[in-house]
Amino acid sequence: MEIYLDHAATTYTDKKVLKVMMPYFSETFGNASSLHGFGREAQKGVAKARSQVADAIGAKPAEIYFTSGGTESDNWAIKGAALLAGKGHIITTSVEHHAVLETCESLEKAGFEVTYLTVDKDGRVSPEAVRAALRSDTVLISVMTANNEVGTIMPIKQIGAVAKENGIPFHTDAVQAAGHIPLDVNDMNVDLLSISAHKFYGPKGVGALYIRTGTKIEKFMHGGAQEREQRAGTLDTPGIVGLGAAIELAVQDMDKEYEREAKLAKRLSEGLLELPKVFLNGHKTDRLPGNVNISFEGIEAEALMLHLDLEGISVSTGSACSSGSTNPSYVLRKMGLTNEQARAAVRFTIGRRNTASQIDEVIEKTKDIVVRLRSISPLFADKGER
Amino acid sequence: MEIYLDHAATTYTDKKVLKVMMPYFSETFGNASSLHGFGREAQKGVAKARSQVADAIGAKPAEIYFTSGGTESDNWAIKGAALLAGKGHIITTSVEHHAVLETCESLEKAGFEVTYLTVDKDGRVSPEAVRAALRSDTVLISVMTANNEVGTIMPIKQIGAVAKENGIPFHTDAVQAAGHIPLDVNDMNVDLLSISAHKFYGPKGVGALYIRTGTKIEKFMHGGAQEREQRAGTLDTPGIVGLGAAIELAVQDMDKEYEREAKLAKRLSEGLLELPKVFLNGHKTDRLPGNVNISFEGIEAEALMLHLDLEGISVSTGSACSSGSTNPSYVLRKMGLTNEQARAAVRFTIGRRNTASQIDEVIEKTKDIVVRLRSISPLFADKGER
Repeated sequence: MEIYLDHAATTYTDKKVLKVMMPYFSETFGNASSLHGFGREAQKGVAKARSQVADAIGAKPAEIYFTSGGTESDNWAIKGAALLAGKGHIITTSVEHHAVLETCESLEKAGFEVTYLTVDKDGRVSPEAVRAALRSDTVLISVMTANNEVGTIMPIKQIGAVAKENGIPFHTDAVQAAGHIPLDVNDMNVDLLSISAHKFYGPKGVGALYIRTGTKIEKFMHGGAQEREQRAGTLDTPGIVGLGAAIELAVQDMDKEYEREAKLAKRLSEGLLELPKVFLNGHKTDRLPGNVNISFEGIEAEALMLHLDLEGISVSTGSACSSGSTNPSYVLRKMGLTNEQARAAVRFTIGRRNTASQIDEVIEKTKDIVVRLRSISPLFADKGER
Repeated sequence: MEIYLDHAATTYTDKKVLKVMMPYFSETFGNASSLHGFGREAQKGVAKARSQVADAIGAKPAEIYFTSGGTESDNWAIKGAALLAGKGHIITTSVEHHAVLETCESLEKAGFEVTYLTVDKDGRVSPEAVRAALRSDTVLISVMTANNEVGTIMPIKQIGAVAKENGIPFHTDAVQAAGHIPLDVNDMNVDLLSISAHKFYGPKGVGALYIRTGTKIEKFMHGGAQEREQRAGTLDTPGIVGLGAAIELAVQDMDKEYEREAKLAKRLSEGLLELPKVFLNGHKTDRLPGNVNISFEGIEAEALMLHLDLEGISVSTGSACSSGSTNPSYVLRKMGLTNEQARAAVRFTIGRRNTASQIDEVIEKTKDIVVRLRSISPLFADKGER
């Protein structure tokens, strides 16, 4: 029996979601832009999904634009705000997802200036740091809602207040947060918010960008007149319908599932922390419920990951998007971990199907492997322990 | 019984394709970038699809990059080539899809110069016109393989030869052509080629860009290290697997289906041309097999389309991507039609499920509606006819 503990990388598509999507592949298959019956039926599905997404984040349907996923939403929000301004300064953090960091770096090459704010040992950036970084030519602030590696939740509402007070558009990458913790664009004071369906049991290849009424950004995807002429490309109706159904389900079950996952995460974390020289990364309380990121000193996380994989247990080292990289996690490094501590970090992310007995099995197997790997590790000084 | 004759707007997903996709939603659901078993299984599906796409167009798998569809592929190819050059001149045609035209217009705003070549009455641009437009600072040529409105096939091989001779990257939007007529990137002399799965019975929301080995373009989607660090974003495994299966099936059945559709198109076109003051748009022979674009003089195409819709027959006026626009087709206008003639054009696009008896029904109903509409049309001078 396989145990999947990499839900931050991607989730399976919920059977209920897939059921809603199915007719849109081969029956209600029209192009949602077509004016005939097939087109109108597809458009109905899209309209419903737009309302579902809007309802889930306290937005209006007209503020929701469908995209191909979180990466596109981030690219669009950031490049769109920058290109509208033409030049200027952007504030973000040094622990954002690559979709934000690489996009900002591409804008630096194009002449923009970017401030990458540092974070504290828990992975949080302070609203005061954002305020201190403001310049007269700041055109955008982008801070993630929750970190994909360590699960730390940022003080978005307070950062948003700083942005609002200064009249600067505020974007948040909520890809890891959406469907897992409550989001309300008004409460959060955000103008632009990215989500991706496959992080909350929806399909891959579809996401959305929330754009607050009145917030202007340039187009990213040029072409046809879809999405009120703001995002070109034939609408992926099955994907969009799936996104809508998935976020509605996730919000319905959120409280119960949050509590369940947080309990399992506590169990996992406490079980693993019984090992010596092991510590939890990220904020102790302000974190995503299913995230357990732990450094096992003296261990190469990749080795632990592969050994767990042989046991049918799927975990990750850092984000899936940078797998294969031999560099230690930049997120953990920015939080103050040494190279060795960062290389020793494994991310366990709990999801809907995980059970307490699975968690107990994972604790047991992980402990065994860690002890075994440490016994042969030149990195681990305290071979005698445990 | 509904008759769908708008296959150029989108096709249904073939049941065989959907069957191949299904396990990738909720079972083999891993993130293809993950190093564990779930990730490796997903990666296998992606690798197979990459080979299938490569095989279908005479490319190498390493030259195929998955995208969210034709619009993204076009945006990436054109902006990518332009941004790599930094400045310069682009040659395209005035009858390209909006995904190309709008992208070129966005580059004009950024300081690039663009030549939009005119076409002849059949909708073709000549290789000589491309050669004559060349400048020392030309950085890209982009000419569509086949037109989405009138089905005209461009002399791509000859245009590609001009590009090659002059060492200029050559992009073709093959979105309408792929899966319907034979494509070979070497025979066509193309360096960049865009395709979209939902135009050949694959799913929506997924496409590919072929990039010839040695051809360099800037990234469009910034973020994770997916697609050899060239296109960020979690891979849409079900979609990609569907794209691969769909193009393989389309190529297998191409000869037979081409002949079948061309025969039905001839039947439809001949049947409708029995009406007075009616003419076929596009090239008589060098056209996509399923395309029948006809101007019914004295008729507003939109009215004809809506009346056919009431009869359960789905056709379109121009492309779905510009539906709702009250402007006459720019493609037809560029081919020399008057505003009135362009507004009188209806596009019928035949697909796999259409039968001869459906075509006969469409001929009959269309004729009836045309006669009826003309009888009340102030635009039609020859009310007495027929």
